[in-house]
Amino acid sequence: SAWIKILTGPGGGLSAAKLLKASGLNPVVLEARDRVGGRTFTVQNKETKWVDLGGAYIGPTQNRIFRLAKEYGIKTYKVNEQENLVHYANGRSYPFKGSFPPMWNPFVLLDFNNLFRTMDEMGKEIPREAPWRAPHAEEWDKMTMHELFQKICWTSAVRRFATLFVNVNVTSEPHEVSALWFLWYVKQCGGTMRIFSTTNGGQERKFVGGSSQISECMANELGERVKLQSPVYRIDQTGETVLVDTVDKQTYRAKYVIIATPPALNQKMHFNPELPPLRNQLISRVPMGCVIKCMVYYRENFWRKKGFCGSMVIEEEEAPIGLTLDDTKPDGTVPAIMGFILARKCRKLADLTKEERGGSACESRSAEPQPPPVHYEEKNWCEEEYSGGCYTAYFPPGILTQYGRVLREPVDRLYFAGTETASEWSGYMEGAVQAGERAAREVLCAMGKIHQSQIHQPEPESKDVPALPFETTFWERNLPSVGGLLKLTGVSAVLCAAAAASLVLHKKGLLPRS
Amino acid sequence: SAWIKILTGPGGGLSAAKLLKASGLNPVVLEARDRVGGRTFTVQNKETKWVDLGGAYIGPTQNRIFRLAKEYGIKTYKVNEQENLVHYANGRSYPFKGSFPPMWNPFVLLDFNNLFRTMDEMGKEIPREAPWRAPHAEEWDKMTMHELFQKICWTSAVRRFATLFVNVNVTSEPHEVSALWFLWYVKQCGGTMRIFSTTNGGQERKFVGGSSQISECMANELGERVKLQSPVYRIDQTGETVLVDTVDKQTYRAKYVIIATPPALNQKMHFNPELPPLRNQLISRVPMGCVIKCMVYYRENFWRKKGFCGSMVIEEEEAPIGLTLDDTKPDGTVPAIMGFILARKCRKLADLTKEERGGSACESRSAEPQPPPVHYEEKNWCEEEYSGGCYTAYFPPGILTQYGRVLREPVDRLYFAGTETASEWSGYMEGAVQAGERAAREVLCAMGKIHQSQIHQPEPESKDVPALPFETTFWERNLPSVGGLLKLTGVSAVLCAAAAASLVLHKKGLLPRS
Repeated sequence: SAWIKILTGPGGGLSAAKLLKASGLNPVVLEARDRVGGRTFTVQNKETKWVDLGGAYIGPTQNRIFRLAKEYGIKTYKVNEQENLVHYANGRSYPFKGSFPPMWNPFVLLDFNNLFRTMDEMGKEIPREAPWRAPHAEEWDKMTMHELFQKICWTSAVRRFATLFVNVNVTSEPHEVSALWFLWYVKQCGGTMRIFSTTNGGQERKFVGGSSQISECMANELGERVKLQSPVYRIDQTGETVLVDTVDKQTYRAKYVIIATPPALNQKMHFNPELPPLRNQLISRVPMGCVIKCMVYYRENFWRKKGFCGSMVIEEEEAPIGLTLDDTKPDGTVPAIMGFILARKCRKLADLTKEERGGSACESRSAEPQPPPVHYEEKNWCEEEYSGGCYTAYFPPGILTQYGRVLREPVDRLYFAGTETASEWSGYMEGAVQAGERAAREVLCAMGKIHQSQIHQPEPESKDVPALPFETTFWERNLPSVGGLLKLTGVSAVLCAAAAASLVLHKKGLLPRS
Repeated sequence: SAWIKILTGPGGGLSAAKLLKASGLNPVVLEARDRVGGRTFTVQNKETKWVDLGGAYIGPTQNRIFRLAKEYGIKTYKVNEQENLVHYANGRSYPFKGSFPPMWNPFVLLDFNNLFRTMDEMGKEIPREAPWRAPHAEEWDKMTMHELFQKICWTSAVRRFATLFVNVNVTSEPHEVSALWFLWYVKQCGGTMRIFSTTNGGQERKFVGGSSQISECMANELGERVKLQSPVYRIDQTGETVLVDTVDKQTYRAKYVIIATPPALNQKMHFNPELPPLRNQLISRVPMGCVIKCMVYYRENFWRKKGFCGSMVIEEEEAPIGLTLDDTKPDGTVPAIMGFILARKCRKLADLTKEERGGSACESRSAEPQPPPVHYEEKNWCEEEYSGGCYTAYFPPGILTQYGRVLREPVDRLYFAGTETASEWSGYMEGAVQAGERAAREVLCAMGKIHQSQIHQPEPESKDVPALPFETTFWERNLPSVGGLLKLTGVSAVLCAAAAASLVLHKKGLLPRS
């Protein structure tokens, strides 16, 4: 008897198969592409040694992926964040340290503090496993993040940064996504600080040698069971065994099937019998985000010499790239900057060639002359048929409350994995592993091999990469919003108060330093 | 050489094939289902004689579908609207005549008038063929209709009716759809009056014998060229001819392919080479609406005897059905009421059986006792794999401006039809015919048989069903909005003015009567 996994995600399907094999079963993995790894994709060449063109970053609290890496002896290293980061806004650049750029205008500061505090507070109301059960689920799901920002934010500076915050985290626009969904997404990553930070956050580390190694090691372990170039186009559950047809004209028989693709790619398959109505509609309602990942290579690491770590947070509308990080190898060789072209900017540049985009991506934001780049790599994930986009699926307004509950609900002998079905770091490699292992245990439970209470298992914390809490300061917790301030004191008193607050904050440091 | 049409829509693919055949070519139609007709679906049985479980209504300005019907000798008849309609709101029922329920509260009346006037005025700015080029395209596409209603409407009565207006017209919720898209949709149907009216509007008529006859007549004409039960799962454009593989394991070769499915169902196919990035992402961003069409049959037509035509506009949240129309046969036999379960209510009732839903759909809104129903028919379009939903695709916020331009842009030898690609009555049978014929002429143009200027052809008006203009009254054009009134006169003068206006309107009749 075979357990079939269809169209791998970044480790989601393979981790399901790995667990099933370890339980003495005989899984087969059907992979649409000619490689494993899904939305992770490490390429090796002489210019770069190796480069992660897909998912790459990992950080504290992502304990499952660290467990797998450790098992396979894959080392991690810290993304460089020793020197200054730079925030580009309003045609100027502001060097800073910490997770978020500091805001010096007192109104902007109050507004910024209130926005991020509010997002985290709203997140606390939202259950990780069932965001559609949040007390305000319906109200928040009817709203886009754009609407929520219009309600919460008083200053255009904060609204612009908030837009970038959505762009960077979910590769889509604030007006495209449900507020309930985005707040859930941030929450299940551990909050605004955890998701956005390099140090102590989601971007703290990379794998030495590239992230695809995890999938490759699992695939090696599974051996012949992994069938490449086998996109599934048909699943027939009408008989005693499930029949699975692939585009390369093979038919597989299985007792159970785990589908580990993004939900939207369930559409690539023709189902007999048809899927239940809600699932049939869900899979055309959760599009994949939009991102081009770019790497620009230089002869030398000139930015560190100038006191910059390579991280840039870029709000300028005409800049193609929204966020950069140092992508130099851990031993200091192959100096490079990684940048993301995100959402609307991705669409704007979709018709350019790689060379044209490269030229545009390499354009310096700095007034000073820079050494010319020596090499360019990029990957436009919007063109991948078997991803549909990256990093992950997003939920437009109204979908999570109406269709969310069938996201991982089995359909007869079909079970659903994929990072979109996870409840911790969904959208990340970590989520893919959580989902894959959970789906495998659902199958084991259906077979009577484990009890239902064993399906969902918490992961012990990684000893090598422990998580530090993000402390909030008294001021962060208690400063009023701009609106609150206006109400409290009347407009006349505002300037005084804000000036005072600004002084205090200037001395104390409003935002946590890493 | 074959021209291949894949997965028929309601006549869209067949009308393309019909035109190509008439031009001396040799098209083949690959239909996923075991029947033609797509989202139209006429069933014959002894209880109903015949019943349209899918698209059924036609009306003035839908000239292409009238042309086809005339060619095949299919007659139309008027949906009964002679007696009173009924508007259910706030737990009460209000008999009325005309297209829209009248509003008696003067504030509500001003608010209602202003909302529909504003939607039509905004529509005038939006080009039918390219809504993404509207002067305010970006701004309106960032907004949902829910947001727009919040901005425009002052009264909750009008907001509730506006919600129903979206539900009925596009089987989705105001917070799910882009304002730009919805305003475009209403505009390309001829405006708020044309789209919502029975008499002189989109619901004026039905086909005697059912709407599927149009597709069946075309299929008969095409004969052996129509291949049923042939869902396409692969399109290979890498060779000199295009290869098309079907689930029943046939391979077809063609010089050109017209895909006449809803855009979302392009996902059912595996493409070689992959689709261009924007098209690859578009097809997972345009979900299909959500509707269950219900027909309740009675021994006698009791409603007409009581002075009601059978049309009901139902706002009550606990009522499953939002809109009804008389579905009695034109000769007065088989008395029946047709009702739509729409959007959120569809999801709420998704898990019930047909019998349970029937019971709920048949529940009387009236206080008086009614004769019991004798038969029930329904079709839940959300469960159809090869429609994905009904009536049509909707655009969530942000998609039309970013992806709209590739909706009917050919991809090498692939051309795109389907009612979603139409620019007049898109979403209707009429749009399917417009799109199918346009795509066929695009192929003819690519072959050098016609000039590019001949691709888009206007349709002469049907002589049998001419359109009457909808006249607006002086008051409709000039009454202020609630906000305008408050600004103009100050709150103290409002009640006087509104009372006066209400008197005038009561005498003149604010809304056009049919």
